[in-house]
Amino acid sequence: MPEDDNVVYIGGKGVMSYVLAVVTQFNQGVSEVEIKARGKAISRAVDVAEIVKNKFLNEVKIEDIGTKTEELENDDGTKSKVSAINIKMSAPQKQ
Amino acid sequence: MPEDDNVVYIGGKGVMSYVLAVVTQFNQGVSEVEIKARGKAISRAVDVAEIVKNKFLNEVKIEDIGTKTEELENDDGTKSKVSAINIKMSAPQKQ
Repeated sequence: MPEDDNVVYIGGKGVMSYVLAVVTQFNQGVSEVEIKARGKAISRAVDVAEIVKNKFLNEVKIEDIGTKTEELENDDGTKSKVSAINIKMSAPQKQ
Repeated sequence: MPEDDNVVYIGGKGVMSYVLAVVTQFNQGVSEVEIKARGKAISRAVDVAEIVKNKFLNEVKIEDIGTKTEELENDDGTKSKVSAINIKMSAPQKQ
């Protein structure tokens, strides 16, 4: 299984699309899902994690949250820095 | 010293105002600063932490990041839920 199967990238769609993506992954039996976002989408990533945990899958926990700075190349060749977040969510192991 | 002295709340001002607030706290000798934000300001809170760490105070680390959901009462008495973030930054103890 490629690593990206457990990753949900947050973009400009509505929060619930991403919530559904995360919930679907856990319902398919994966034990860990990473939510990744950059720039202004970071707030939405936190919304997604909180909604998954509080409204859909109460047994799922936020395991770890990491941030970093990424460098992007603009169309004109200049570079911009942007913050990124990585929210690792985990489900308890099924017995 | 009241607890709030070590807290920087992120609002609608420019990122650098908050970066300066955090850097000033550390320069005054506190060993821990908490950056708090809600809703759309969450992205800016991550920017502030990343800029403090990467551009100003390389010895300062992000110790812990927590999220939660808060309930706000609107002007018309209805309630809304909003995500919140708490970024704990720490400086190494001075010898």
